[in-house]
Amino acid sequence: MDVLIDKIIEKKNPSVIGLDPRPEYIPPHIMKKHISEKGETLEAAADAYFEFNRGLIDAIWEVVPAVKPQAAFYELLGPPGVEAFRRTAAYAKSKGLYVIGDIKRNDIGSTAQAYSEAYLGAVKIGDTLHKAFDCDSVTVSGYLGSDGIKPFLDVCKREKKTLFTLVKTSNKSSGELQDLVTGKGRVYELMGKMLEDLSKDTMGKYGYSICGAVVGATFPNELVRLRGLLKNTFFLVPGYGAQGGSAADVAGAFDNRGLGAVVNSSRGVICAWMKTGYNGEDYMEAAAREALKMKDDITKYCI
Amino acid sequence: MDVLIDKIIEKKNPSVIGLDPRPEYIPPHIMKKHISEKGETLEAAADAYFEFNRGLIDAIWEVVPAVKPQAAFYELLGPPGVEAFRRTAAYAKSKGLYVIGDIKRNDIGSTAQAYSEAYLGAVKIGDTLHKAFDCDSVTVSGYLGSDGIKPFLDVCKREKKTLFTLVKTSNKSSGELQDLVTGKGRVYELMGKMLEDLSKDTMGKYGYSICGAVVGATFPNELVRLRGLLKNTFFLVPGYGAQGGSAADVAGAFDNRGLGAVVNSSRGVICAWMKTGYNGEDYMEAAAREALKMKDDITKYCI
Repeated sequence: MDVLIDKIIEKKNPSVIGLDPRPEYIPPHIMKKHISEKGETLEAAADAYFEFNRGLIDAIWEVVPAVKPQAAFYELLGPPGVEAFRRTAAYAKSKGLYVIGDIKRNDIGSTAQAYSEAYLGAVKIGDTLHKAFDCDSVTVSGYLGSDGIKPFLDVCKREKKTLFTLVKTSNKSSGELQDLVTGKGRVYELMGKMLEDLSKDTMGKYGYSICGAVVGATFPNELVRLRGLLKNTFFLVPGYGAQGGSAADVAGAFDNRGLGAVVNSSRGVICAWMKTGYNGEDYMEAAAREALKMKDDITKYCI
Repeated sequence: MDVLIDKIIEKKNPSVIGLDPRPEYIPPHIMKKHISEKGETLEAAADAYFEFNRGLIDAIWEVVPAVKPQAAFYELLGPPGVEAFRRTAAYAKSKGLYVIGDIKRNDIGSTAQAYSEAYLGAVKIGDTLHKAFDCDSVTVSGYLGSDGIKPFLDVCKREKKTLFTLVKTSNKSSGELQDLVTGKGRVYELMGKMLEDLSKDTMGKYGYSICGAVVGATFPNELVRLRGLLKNTFFLVPGYGAQGGSAADVAGAFDNRGLGAVVNSSRGVICAWMKTGYNGEDYMEAAAREALKMKDDITKYCI
């Protein structure tokens, strides 16, 4: 986790921008250009996604330490979309950004190992090693228990990378399962404790392990309790901005050094152009402005 | 769920074959051919996966009603692997097989909707609709609550397709979270009940909803209890064969008509060639033989 935290300190900004494109989020001039080249195809849309993302990355890389592409939106375009995901991750890395692949995969044993090698590690074909997606970090779901976490931890240890496991998510219905009270505590607390146990031999110089937790900004009280409970777990905090969480809501995610969390915003930044009245020609400037505004907003409470 | 059950009745066989390729599962003559054409590349391995799968499908389609490709193994090969997943699903459908995409996705709201449109529905580029993967069914994780299930249900209703949500999984550590006792019952029981509630308006002619449950063969007692508890939920049962579950272990998954479940085997069938001593030239015959043996084994207890 040190690599991410060093970048956060360097940029004085604990925020991550979600690169979550949809056809309607792409400025019309970009989508039109690619459709005129390749027709109304998945390939054209995937090329448009990548051009949009490249512009966003160019606009924000000097301000933010990390980006988080959400796999779902790329998979919606089939294999060409998945290629746009790969290219986006590679381009972001080339600009020094920490890339968190938001894949929320959920599987066990050799299957979880395949996912972790795909997104964080490598595969051998004959005698040649290939890195399929080469992210710095991924999100994972732990419903299946430690069998679903350990393979990711093993690859992260080897590759000096990280994962973030879902603990208390930002959506309205997250409590249906996660808040259930058991004899040993709430389900989400037990999930958090399981992660700390599994990763306690991986502490970095800032006292955080390689296994972080996803904890939503929309439940500020739970966020504060989890910060106290999981002292060695770095948090990825969705729910700020468009989802309703404020800077004050995420304040509880940070430790007394102002570290301990990275806060995500997606639509607030990537769709900023929709509010300026310039039809998207200014999408880079609009994104840069919002990313700076977010930085100023959150850093009232940290670093 | 009627489409799947009709196919099970037609073939008199409630089994599904997991198409879970790995470089070492591919008969050497197939891998060599593609490496000689495209080098030790991800593209060569992906082409080998597809040729292997096509042979397996040709070998088993007359005997089994369904196949279940596991996304992890394809994603390990990057975008070319994802294209092999897409081609495998399309080829299996062309042979009349029911295709369950084993993607175990886990997200909420518009993100879950993107996953469901990707794997079960369609996306519009300009005025043109594209089906990215076009499976008949997918697997989903419900840790995030009903916000993560409803978008899949909506697309399934519209497209007349199905989903299977993780309830009690087959792995050793599944109890760590799923067996926790709450005031209202065990976590996995509550997950099962939530699914029945969410999908109760989608009953088919056999009395099963469009939202099935993944319940492992490795916990036969829990399987029996869940069969009693979730009368309207069709089960996808992993864990038979290589993972240790026997036909007697899965018997409890069926209702008194011998319906109510489809049982998965992956390695037992697709790797059958490794035990015959013919270096993989006979992989189709070996797979067909094992698929028939599995049918004879399970149908002692059903249909």
